[in-house]
Amino acid sequence: MLLRSLLLLLAVVAAAPRCVADDGYRLWLKYDRVADASRLAQYRAAAQFVAASGGDAVLTTAAAELQRGLQGLLGQAVPRLAAPASTKRGILLAIDPSANVSGSSASRDGYQISAQGKNLVVKGRSGAGVLYGVFALLRQLQTGQSVANLSLTSSPRIQYRLLNHWDNPNGTVERGYAGSSIWKWNELPQRLDPRYTDYARANASIGINGVAINNVNASARYLTAEYLDKVKALAGVMRPYGIRVYLSVFWAAPKVIGGLKTADPLDPQVQQWWKAKTDEIYRAIPDFGGFLVKANSEGEPGPQDYGRNHADGANMLATALGTHDGIVMWRAFVYKAGSDDRFKQAYEEFKPLDGKFSPKVLVQVKNGPIDFQAREPFHPLFGAMPQTPLVLEVQITQEYLGMATHLVYLAPMFKECLDADTQTKGPGSTVARVVDGSLDQHRLSGIAGVANIGTDRNWTGHPMGQANWYAFGRLAWDYTLPSAAIAKEWTQMTLTREPKAVATIVELMDRSRDVYVRYTTPLGLHHIMGQNIHYGPEPWLAQAGRPDWTAVYYHKADSLGLGFNRTATGSNALALYSAGVQQQWGNPTTCPLNYLLWFHHVGWKQPLRTGRTLWNELVTRYYTGADSVTWMQQRWASVQPAVDPALHADVAARLAIQRREALWWRDACVLYFQTFSKQPIPAPFAPPTRTLADVKTLVNLYQLK
Amino acid sequence: MLLRSLLLLLAVVAAAPRCVADDGYRLWLKYDRVADASRLAQYRAAAQFVAASGGDAVLTTAAAELQRGLQGLLGQAVPRLAAPASTKRGILLAIDPSANVSGSSASRDGYQISAQGKNLVVKGRSGAGVLYGVFALLRQLQTGQSVANLSLTSSPRIQYRLLNHWDNPNGTVERGYAGSSIWKWNELPQRLDPRYTDYARANASIGINGVAINNVNASARYLTAEYLDKVKALAGVMRPYGIRVYLSVFWAAPKVIGGLKTADPLDPQVQQWWKAKTDEIYRAIPDFGGFLVKANSEGEPGPQDYGRNHADGANMLATALGTHDGIVMWRAFVYKAGSDDRFKQAYEEFKPLDGKFSPKVLVQVKNGPIDFQAREPFHPLFGAMPQTPLVLEVQITQEYLGMATHLVYLAPMFKECLDADTQTKGPGSTVARVVDGSLDQHRLSGIAGVANIGTDRNWTGHPMGQANWYAFGRLAWDYTLPSAAIAKEWTQMTLTREPKAVATIVELMDRSRDVYVRYTTPLGLHHIMGQNIHYGPEPWLAQAGRPDWTAVYYHKADSLGLGFNRTATGSNALALYSAGVQQQWGNPTTCPLNYLLWFHHVGWKQPLRTGRTLWNELVTRYYTGADSVTWMQQRWASVQPAVDPALHADVAARLAIQRREALWWRDACVLYFQTFSKQPIPAPFAPPTRTLADVKTLVNLYQLK
Repeated sequence: MLLRSLLLLLAVVAAAPRCVADDGYRLWLKYDRVADASRLAQYRAAAQFVAASGGDAVLTTAAAELQRGLQGLLGQAVPRLAAPASTKRGILLAIDPSANVSGSSASRDGYQISAQGKNLVVKGRSGAGVLYGVFALLRQLQTGQSVANLSLTSSPRIQYRLLNHWDNPNGTVERGYAGSSIWKWNELPQRLDPRYTDYARANASIGINGVAINNVNASARYLTAEYLDKVKALAGVMRPYGIRVYLSVFWAAPKVIGGLKTADPLDPQVQQWWKAKTDEIYRAIPDFGGFLVKANSEGEPGPQDYGRNHADGANMLATALGTHDGIVMWRAFVYKAGSDDRFKQAYEEFKPLDGKFSPKVLVQVKNGPIDFQAREPFHPLFGAMPQTPLVLEVQITQEYLGMATHLVYLAPMFKECLDADTQTKGPGSTVARVVDGSLDQHRLSGIAGVANIGTDRNWTGHPMGQANWYAFGRLAWDYTLPSAAIAKEWTQMTLTREPKAVATIVELMDRSRDVYVRYTTPLGLHHIMGQNIHYGPEPWLAQAGRPDWTAVYYHKADSLGLGFNRTATGSNALALYSAGVQQQWGNPTTCPLNYLLWFHHVGWKQPLRTGRTLWNELVTRYYTGADSVTWMQQRWASVQPAVDPALHADVAARLAIQRREALWWRDACVLYFQTFSKQPIPAPFAPPTRTLADVKTLVNLYQLK
Repeated sequence: MLLRSLLLLLAVVAAAPRCVADDGYRLWLKYDRVADASRLAQYRAAAQFVAASGGDAVLTTAAAELQRGLQGLLGQAVPRLAAPASTKRGILLAIDPSANVSGSSASRDGYQISAQGKNLVVKGRSGAGVLYGVFALLRQLQTGQSVANLSLTSSPRIQYRLLNHWDNPNGTVERGYAGSSIWKWNELPQRLDPRYTDYARANASIGINGVAINNVNASARYLTAEYLDKVKALAGVMRPYGIRVYLSVFWAAPKVIGGLKTADPLDPQVQQWWKAKTDEIYRAIPDFGGFLVKANSEGEPGPQDYGRNHADGANMLATALGTHDGIVMWRAFVYKAGSDDRFKQAYEEFKPLDGKFSPKVLVQVKNGPIDFQAREPFHPLFGAMPQTPLVLEVQITQEYLGMATHLVYLAPMFKECLDADTQTKGPGSTVARVVDGSLDQHRLSGIAGVANIGTDRNWTGHPMGQANWYAFGRLAWDYTLPSAAIAKEWTQMTLTREPKAVATIVELMDRSRDVYVRYTTPLGLHHIMGQNIHYGPEPWLAQAGRPDWTAVYYHKADSLGLGFNRTATGSNALALYSAGVQQQWGNPTTCPLNYLLWFHHVGWKQPLRTGRTLWNELVTRYYTGADSVTWMQQRWASVQPAVDPALHADVAARLAIQRREALWWRDACVLYFQTFSKQPIPAPFAPPTRTLADVKTLVNLYQLK
């Protein structure tokens, strides 16, 4: 009998596809068999079947995903039944609109996991809720938690949790560093790359429920019938995972593809065109999510081309959406040439429009006032537009944070913004509470992350970049989760379960963003990177297409000191914040050192609260920052026995690149700013062995065509 | 005992890495276990060890590749020994500079495989020869040939067999349709993507021995020390596979990165700069292959900027190479604005330079006179420059041949050019004999294929595009191989061994290029594709940056007829060919119909030798061509049981796209040319159900940003 079973098994094995080493494609959904024997026994005992009834498409996905996960984790197939088996223990999945979920009672995405008799029950207020519950349950197993008497409830704090893809029709990805676009437009709709499904799975597993699939610098072609057919096909892949598709729109589409003479939002023909187009979209994609718009920004057309304002434009699209269940996300990333301080411009354009947007419009605001710098103060629009729901836009792709060669875990950066207190309604008026709608009682709430995903086999280029995709999703669901806790669960699911290695990696990840800031833009420096490519240092950049695309515009180094005076004696951008914030940040002795040069022009010899002068503190941060990469290398080396060898070597090689480039940054910035400070490199640091000309030559060559 | 063995096997299985479906990554080097039991037994008996001695790096690679292949094919590990085992049968690898190889006696790349006693011996005239022999032996096993009394000798007919990558520093690939560049410049030299090695393996397996890694529209940055360090790292990966690295150079590099005021090839400082740069390269990469140059072409700088000619430029680089073992491949793809016929320009510029190039220079000539059209007559420079070795440049990437969605097997097209008879030294003066140097007794010979490779998991986007990479390498080695024979061995190694399916697929492949020509550019039409993107039909294109970038420049449709009169009464481009060719092609009644409209403006009602008028023949070809895609779909459907399901579905979906786009082409061209011919669509064909305006709208949207 045993022999017969073995022979059968061998027959299966012989027919099995070939085997390969782990290459990162599976992300955090690896489902390798549980190694701990007692845990494995517990899980096997508890999960002898999956029961789910009803034809809800997302519930069906949930059951299949649970079966798939269990098959891997338990090393055995788990059957799906229509109803619980009375003699066995198993897992029941059920949609229950009144399920008792924690958090926002309004969310249909919440779930409840509980023991019921000998079974575990995963209830959701919708199919999506069950799916999120299933992934939460699998996470318990992946991280080795007990499932005895399991009781978990959760509900997302933010309603619209989107990835924004800056993917172009030709397959390039603006600010993408992981290969080309995963969307194969020339293959759609006839061919559906299997990767689309794996992408949807990964997103659903972290609670992402929307995807804007094309670049905000949008092509009109997505709105043609030809392309809508392709978008429809993608939407069909996303739908069973509870994910809705959104489109970035090109404002001039009514002219370019509609044959109209204008794109004026107050023109009846234009309004009619958008209405008909929107109806056409919903006929093809009944759960279409809505529109994302970059208008009158960086050369994109918009309503201002016709003397209208952003609200005119957004409201026209909202009207076109009509009774369809869709929204407009209108980006506030605007800045005209010629202003005295780019910092203020989005505020000045959008603040007066508060209260003028129709209920289906959310204004999408980047975390900071400039552009995804390694550290920015929170955007002054947060708290300043109480009558308008604001979507927080963060960047997961590391445009200014080392692309795909620097290990920078972004959860601390996301949380720094979410946790920032705007004080606009007194203490506790955090950006998170603005965004989740609780501060101003908004029905709609949203958060968007610019994706770091491409065709690279491991999705994100840098293997550790996967953690940023993961962390974005987890924080979009629940921004109260600690960065380290997210890092820990990701590490356990993705890299290793060895406790000491996990602790080491989590520490390394959690400190990595501060390290990056120290060797690139310490003390509130910003926008001193290589022009256009945003790679490497270029603090000497003084000529560009616009003054606010140079570096000198921002750091304002001179013989006296360094930094942008944004107090009342300067650009007065500080006045955009609430009084409490102004009070703290307006005084250089109370302003957090991390934001100091964002708001103050500080003398080179000015003592800071660290006891060092500005110059000495600046140099100290550049040097210790670069040296911290060596520390990261050492920490990473120490976990070698616990991590897949190929993956370990990959990250180790990237850390070596990071160390080298950290030294570029250090030397470039220290030597350049020294031409103003005329101060020596303080002990114990050794002056760079190369000249400023050397470093300029080195980093400038990356600007060559 | 059986039970114990089974248990042991199960233990191995349990520890094995995860299993995945075949995803095309392994190309034709799959090495799945031999299914035929008697063949397997024969192979196992013959290959009980691999013996190789000596430390030659490429020989070491050969032994390792043989072990790897055998392990897969035989399902068991085969040990490597330093010397043959007296009691067992095995495979001996040995370098023997006097090995008896067929073909060119000068080639160090030749190999000889023979039975010696109970063993098989693979001898090469170099390590690379052994490596090629090993892959030839593995091919025998992969295609199920007997190895009893095996006796194979082979030697390449062409010395330099290169892939040209049009890859840019930012990761994009000019005319690439399979993801982004496989070269990760920001990771080099610290990180070596494992894919580099797999790329080298694949190339070596088909005899490719050189790689120009960057776009001919070159960046100067590759010549900086920073980048040479990266190139050196890549060369280190290629070297053990017998592959040399070449660089495309930016002519103005001495100015852009050298700080000189000129790039005049006759300026002593410029000459000195290139000499020093070349020496620097060879210090880093002792086996560096040489330079590939696109100069004074499509806006690229070149020696003509200083009143010099191409020979001045090429010879200066040859002088810089000095005694280093490297060559200059100088491209003849030049055409200035304003000429009456672009067809003639490369000839007119290069023919007068014949005899003026130094011995290290080869002139690289595209297969046809325009630019990689689906069918071109052979380039008139072939045969016209007897004193200069000419490299044949073909395009493997399908810029004008349906990108990654049309199944077009290119070997017939490559061979059409290679087999073409220039008649410059009498009958039999084929392009192949020009290229291999035999016609004019050249020591150097070369062939280059523009790669179709990217980061897509399966390398080439379209799974069948792998066959074009494969066929290029096989033909570069031996252009006498029949297209169908190459298709057969590729199919057997890659798709299926089922004989009927193999025959069906081979037939489909071998006819595919003629099918593509019929539905896009029959009868010698050319250059009527979508502007810039080269996607879809755009025969109506009449306005572009230059007249010779339009379509009307080439098809010259008018009320009288269609085609470019290149006879003596027209541009007289025909005069560039030898008398015999002129005689045949100059007379519309003897000119092959495939080239008719390349050389003649033919009246719409002119009867052709098919019995149909030009118009009716044109329409017939468009319709039957598009319908042949349906035939391809049916043939592909018939092999479904014999092919991996995911791969079958992938190709089937792409064929559906191809059919749809074939109908675009058909309708666009038939309806557009009908506005000139004023003739009805002949029976039995039904007129298109859409209007010309419909098709224009459809294909034009792909021109939107």
